Amino acid sequence: MKIYKKAILPCGFKASGVSCGIKKSGKLDLALLYSSLPAKAAGLFTVNKIPAAPVILCRNFLGKGGLFRAIIVNSGNANCFNGKKGLEDSLTTVSILAKRLGVKKENLLVASTGIIGKRLPLAKIKYALPELVRKLSCKGIKEASEAIMTTDTFLKGVTARVNIAGKPVTICGIAKGAGMISPDMATLLVFILTDFDLSRPLLRNALKEAVDGSFNCITVDGCMSTNDSVILLANGAASGKRPSGKEGLKLFSKALNLLSLELAKMIVKDAEGATKFIEIKVEGAKDFNQARRAALSIANSSLFKTAVYGENPNFGRIAAAVGASGVKASEKHLEIKVSPLRKKDITVNVALGAGKANAVVYTSDLTPEYIKINAEYN
Amino acid sequence: MKIYKKAILPCGFKASGVSCGIKKSGKLDLALLYSSLPAKAAGLFTVNKIPAAPVILCRNFLGKGGLFRAIIVNSGNANCFNGKKGLEDSLTTVSILAKRLGVKKENLLVASTGIIGKRLPLAKIKYALPELVRKLSCKGIKEASEAIMTTDTFLKGVTARVNIAGKPVTICGIAKGAGMISPDMATLLVFILTDFDLSRPLLRNALKEAVDGSFNCITVDGCMSTNDSVILLANGAASGKRPSGKEGLKLFSKALNLLSLELAKMIVKDAEGATKFIEIKVEGAKDFNQARRAALSIANSSLFKTAVYGENPNFGRIAAAVGASGVKASEKHLEIKVSPLRKKDITVNVALGAGKANAVVYTSDLTPEYIKINAEYN
Repeated sequence: MKIYKKAILPCGFKASGVSCGIKKSGKLDLALLYSSLPAKAAGLFTVNKIPAAPVILCRNFLGKGGLFRAIIVNSGNANCFNGKKGLEDSLTTVSILAKRLGVKKENLLVASTGIIGKRLPLAKIKYALPELVRKLSCKGIKEASEAIMTTDTFLKGVTARVNIAGKPVTICGIAKGAGMISPDMATLLVFILTDFDLSRPLLRNALKEAVDGSFNCITVDGCMSTNDSVILLANGAASGKRPSGKEGLKLFSKALNLLSLELAKMIVKDAEGATKFIEIKVEGAKDFNQARRAALSIANSSLFKTAVYGENPNFGRIAAAVGASGVKASEKHLEIKVSPLRKKDITVNVALGAGKANAVVYTSDLTPEYIKINAEYN
Repeated sequence: MKIYKKAILPCGFKASGVSCGIKKSGKLDLALLYSSLPAKAAGLFTVNKIPAAPVILCRNFLGKGGLFRAIIVNSGNANCFNGKKGLEDSLTTVSILAKRLGVKKENLLVASTGIIGKRLPLAKIKYALPELVRKLSCKGIKEASEAIMTTDTFLKGVTARVNIAGKPVTICGIAKGAGMISPDMATLLVFILTDFDLSRPLLRNALKEAVDGSFNCITVDGCMSTNDSVILLANGAASGKRPSGKEGLKLFSKALNLLSLELAKMIVKDAEGATKFIEIKVEGAKDFNQARRAALSIANSSLFKTAVYGENPNFGRIAAAVGASGVKASEKHLEIKVSPLRKKDITVNVALGAGKANAVVYTSDLTPEYIKINAEYN
C-alpha cells in the first residue's frame, strides 16, 4: 500500500475547475468531479439542524439508492439559510448540468461552501457550465481541488494505491477545510473517488469507519458547519464488479482510513491562523467516546489553545478542560504530559486511569490571525 | 427596592483585603469576609470533575449544616490540581484563621482563584493573617473586592436594599470574573452577604434560582473553571430570626435575582479583551433549557464572536450556531435580528418558532486582546 500526499485520479474519473465569478478575487470557484461509469455512492453530512440546500438535496438523492456520475461543487457561497429558493437553486444547478452531461439529475450530487445566507448566483454558474464540462480531464483534479477552497492556503489531496486480489486499486481524496471545523462532522467538504467496487452497505460502513477515525477527530474552533459533506464515489473501473471478499474489503478500508486521516491532518495544518499542530492523545478512558470527548474538550478550550500559541506551559488548563468534559476522571489518577511548546508540532498525552480506551484528536492553536481572518471574512 | 452598583456591607459584616505576596505585582491578593454573628450559608460550585481544593473543602463544611463566621479568599493561585497537598493547604489556611478568630475551622469557608497546578504559598498567607484580621472593618469591602481580582480591570460590587416586614434588609455581592467564564457555572467567585435571615433550604433555593438566571446565563470563552464558587451568608442581623413569610421571601428573592444579574453583567462587561457587550435573546423555544442552549451555542461560537468584533454582519454564523446546538429549530421558522454592530452594546434576537420558552444570555466578543492576555498569563 502506498500513500501519496497529492491527488491522482483513479481509473474512469475526470475532473475540472473554473472561475465562474462567485469569488470577487477571480480565483477558481466551480469544480466538477466526473465518473465515466455509473458509480455507487455513500455520503455523510453535517448534523446541524439548519443544513445547507445542497446537503438536503444530496441526502434526498442518495436515499433513492441510484448510481452517480458527477459531483458539482462551488466555493464562495454556502447556499445555506436561503429557504425554498436555496433548494431550487441547487436543484437548478444539477438540472442544467444533467442536461449537458446527458444524464438524469438524480445521478448528480452537489456541494457548496462559503458565506451563509446569500443567494447562489445561478446565472454565473450557468454561464460557466459548458467550459467546466469541456475542461474535464484526467489531470483536472488539481483545478478541482483549487476550486473548492475558501480560506485554505494549500491544496489538500491524498491518494492511496493498494493491490486487491491482484488488481491495482486507487483511492483519491480532496478536501477543503480551514475554519468552522468541529465534529460531528468536522466542517469541511471531502470528496473521495475510487475505482474499487463495493456493495452500497459495505461502502457506507467503510466511509463511516474512516470518517469516525479522521474527520470526526479534528477540531479547529468547535464551530459545526451547515455544509459538511463527505462523499465517496466507487465506480469499479479498476477492480471489476465485487471481486474482493473479506480480505479485499479489509485492505480497502485500511487504505481509506489512512487516506482520510492524512486529509484530516492537512485540514488541521491549514487551520485559519494556526502556528501549531497539536496532537492530543487521551488514554485510559472508560470507552472510546469518553476518550474522544475528553480530547475534544481540551482541543476546543480557548484557554488551552491560546496557551499553546503563547508557548506558555499552563497545564492546569488541560486538567480544567478534562474536568469540564464530564468524563470519568479523578485528580488522583490524572497524568498530563506535554512536549516542548517552542516546536511547531505539539503532543499532549493525558492518562485518565479510568479504563482502557484511547482516542487521538488533532487541533491547532488559537491566534490573533484567526480572529483577523474571521472578523473580516464576508 | 434599590440597587446600587457598588458594595456596601450589610449589618454585622466586616471585610478586609491585604497583599500577602502571592501576586508578584504586589497587588492585593488576600481577602476576608467576616460576620459578627453566626450566619447560615448556601453555596453553589463548579461541576468540573477536577475541582479545586477549596471547592472540595467548602462542599464538605457546608454539608455539615453548621453556622459560618467568615470566608477567606486568595487570588493569584487556584490551589487546584495539587492533590492531597492542596487539600491540606486549604485546611491549614482555615485552621490558622480559626485560631486567630477564636472560632472552629468548620465555621469558615475558603476560596481561591488564579493559576492552576501550583502549590499555595502557605507561609505568605500565615504571615499576612494577623494584618488581615486586624484590618477588618465595615468599610473594608472595597479592599476585599480588590483582593479577589485576577485579570479583572474593575471592582465588581452590587448592593440591594429592600424593606421586608418594615425592616431594612441589605444584600451585598462582590465578584471576580474576567476569563474562563462558562456555565454551568460561569467561572467566577461570587460572595453575597445579607443581614436577612432564612432557613437553610429556602436560602439554598433562593441562591439556586438567582444563579440560574444570572451566572449560568453568561459565557466569555466557554471554558468551565475548576474553582467556580458562589457563596451566600445570611446572618439575620437586620431582620431578626425568620420574621418574613412568603411575601418577605419573594421580595428577598427578587432583590437577590436583580443583584446577581447585575453582577453577572459586570463580569461580561469586564471579559478579557472584550470590546462589545452582547445580549442574546432566544424566543419561541420548546422549553427554557433549549432556549438557553441555543443562546449559549451562539454566545460560544468563535465565528460569531469574531464577526461581532469585526463589526461584520455575517448573520449566517448565528443560524449555523443555532443549528449546531441541536435544539428544536427549522430554517422555515427561524428569525434573526441583530442591532447595529458599530455600537458597544449589541442585541441579538432569535425566534425559533418551536414553542413558547425564552432565555437571555450575555457574552462578549472574541478579540486579539483575549488571546494576548491568555497567551501570556502565568
